[in-house]
Amino acid sequence: MTRVYIAGVGMVPIGRHYGKSLLDLAAEAAFKALDEAGLEPDVVVVTNMLASRLQEQDNLGAYIASGIGLRGKPALRVEAACGSGGAGVYTAYSMVRSGLARSVLVVGVEKMTDYPTSTVTSALAQAADAEYELFYGASFTGLNALMMRYYMERHNVDRDTMSEWPVMMHENALSNPYAQIRRRITREDVARSQVVADPIRLLDSSPIGDGAAAVLLVSEEAAAELPEKPSVYIAGAGMATDTVELSNREALDRIPAARAAAEQAYRMAGVGPGDIDVAEIHDAFTINAVLLIEELGFAPYGEAARLLAEGRFHPGDRPTLNPSGGLKARGHPVGTTGVYQIAEVTMQLRGDFPGVRVDGAETGLAVNMGGDGSTLIAHVLRRV
Amino acid sequence: MTRVYIAGVGMVPIGRHYGKSLLDLAAEAAFKALDEAGLEPDVVVVTNMLASRLQEQDNLGAYIASGIGLRGKPALRVEAACGSGGAGVYTAYSMVRSGLARSVLVVGVEKMTDYPTSTVTSALAQAADAEYELFYGASFTGLNALMMRYYMERHNVDRDTMSEWPVMMHENALSNPYAQIRRRITREDVARSQVVADPIRLLDSSPIGDGAAAVLLVSEEAAAELPEKPSVYIAGAGMATDTVELSNREALDRIPAARAAAEQAYRMAGVGPGDIDVAEIHDAFTINAVLLIEELGFAPYGEAARLLAEGRFHPGDRPTLNPSGGLKARGHPVGTTGVYQIAEVTMQLRGDFPGVRVDGAETGLAVNMGGDGSTLIAHVLRRV
Repeated sequence: MTRVYIAGVGMVPIGRHYGKSLLDLAAEAAFKALDEAGLEPDVVVVTNMLASRLQEQDNLGAYIASGIGLRGKPALRVEAACGSGGAGVYTAYSMVRSGLARSVLVVGVEKMTDYPTSTVTSALAQAADAEYELFYGASFTGLNALMMRYYMERHNVDRDTMSEWPVMMHENALSNPYAQIRRRITREDVARSQVVADPIRLLDSSPIGDGAAAVLLVSEEAAAELPEKPSVYIAGAGMATDTVELSNREALDRIPAARAAAEQAYRMAGVGPGDIDVAEIHDAFTINAVLLIEELGFAPYGEAARLLAEGRFHPGDRPTLNPSGGLKARGHPVGTTGVYQIAEVTMQLRGDFPGVRVDGAETGLAVNMGGDGSTLIAHVLRRV
Repeated sequence: MTRVYIAGVGMVPIGRHYGKSLLDLAAEAAFKALDEAGLEPDVVVVTNMLASRLQEQDNLGAYIASGIGLRGKPALRVEAACGSGGAGVYTAYSMVRSGLARSVLVVGVEKMTDYPTSTVTSALAQAADAEYELFYGASFTGLNALMMRYYMERHNVDRDTMSEWPVMMHENALSNPYAQIRRRITREDVARSQVVADPIRLLDSSPIGDGAAAVLLVSEEAAAELPEKPSVYIAGAGMATDTVELSNREALDRIPAARAAAEQAYRMAGVGPGDIDVAEIHDAFTINAVLLIEELGFAPYGEAARLLAEGRFHPGDRPTLNPSGGLKARGHPVGTTGVYQIAEVTMQLRGDFPGVRVDGAETGLAVNMGGDGSTLIAHVLRRV
């Protein structure tokens, strides 16, 4: 079976890009990835969640492919809410592995800042169940708040302990030139920030931003023909889902789909959680990160928040989690996040990530989530 | 390389399903396909265009997978406007061929009739370019009307000649139990029907409908373990795109992406247009069918409408085109159409399509389109 290499990555700094269209952003990220690889893709996979609602533009595969100068190429869009990016990489991986394509460009693009907040949050809520959750007035943050409240009560964890996650994320993002928020915060700042949906506060929540990220996946054969052979490959890929409706889940403090996706990726790569040097995980809210740390095998059930507060998972520790600053501070242009993660982990393994760096990292993990635990995608990346 | 077989198909009769939700429809089609195959899928690919706008539901992979009893399975949604179904089959094909999955269920589902027509047509128009076409007041039908007018003028084809397509489609649909419209029409009826966007009339246009279709793709190894080995496989798959904006195209009477996609599929299958016994092609409007017939190699440039009017492509001829009644009369729940086509061609090759049948058909073609020629997907199916 052909190995699938990551031959190029490109990212746009996340922020408010009033002057740039969906196409401008996609092109900027794609051109960086293609320039780095020095290769044209056979297929384009676009990942995006919100364009149907916000830009009122569908048919995004052809739209983006043509718009970035790749007219004619096979192109399609993959959507899995905030997990669209990871799902797109999973799809592209299968296309290269199948031999259907020698090279596939994955471009995640999302433009969220040109619209009233109410429009954006109602579009984002479409990751939840329209009929059984949203119809009854639940907001997406509200659903995550149920999980956070339950976790804190069940495991006797206080506000300050939970706050270590966003504090670490803001610290990590300080030196990441692609990060949306580069500002140090304290646990006190988190505790005093505005309540969004109790107990979730503003500083538990990822910001709204525009962004684009791209990665070029290539086959073993295509990689061998490049002037510089790529040094990072996808060693394992896993995906799993769960019911979208939270009330049907096994437990409010569990994300079984994360465990299943990670186990698939670990198994395929022949590694375990103890082998992971660096991971980028999905922390749209503080509670997401805490639960994922447990499901991915980095902490025992109920212990993640306490371990974090004691200094685990910070730069210098293995695994280092979210050296980018994560969704919380690097930013979370929803449909792109899974692609940012792959680009970041690739750069960590290559040793050229321009922020907090995990020296000598050989094995990395990227975990992207759609909804509040309904769609999970995990990729294990390794250095050759 | 593993062959990819079609182990089961399921279709819901297209129509106004007021009493059935998106999930109900998806389940009905999926259960038929799974029952036929007697196998659980490893992965679920959902194809849909409009749920983001109409049902305000994203994250459709997890939503549908859980909702139809396949909780936990990897699942994602593929979108390529009206070409979503074909793009989803293309994706699923790559997943099986890659060895990532032994079996992938593709479920196309779309619910369009619960909404005001203006809402549905504005959502459908998102297949066109929001910024350079829709913003200036163009409608999706209007853009197709430009192509039809140009074709008729350039090739000196009159209204009555064009009308043979919808007349044949209504005739073919008469005996298809899944068809939305089973009513005979005449060329006169077409000419006298309401103008939608001159020269496109109501009877040139596919109807709005609810529907769902499913196909189960399996690997060679999985197929061998089934009680009854599937007799139809995907021999070739092709995809190509073009600029979404019509004014940037090469010509108004050409769909080069169709030619490219078909050539890829023919080449992979080792066949040519002359080998195709039966084809289901994308006729959202009469002009789409006429142009596709030429691009797929069934008629010389500018000759398709005249050949049709002379009786070519009717039942009994090779290839027989759209024995189902096509988008025009079988119906066009947009994101599902490409999956209906694969199910129909599979049944033609198995000899159990419950409508107009192409006896002894060994090689079939399915061609699905997104936008007015911007995303094209072609699959060649063969009988073992």
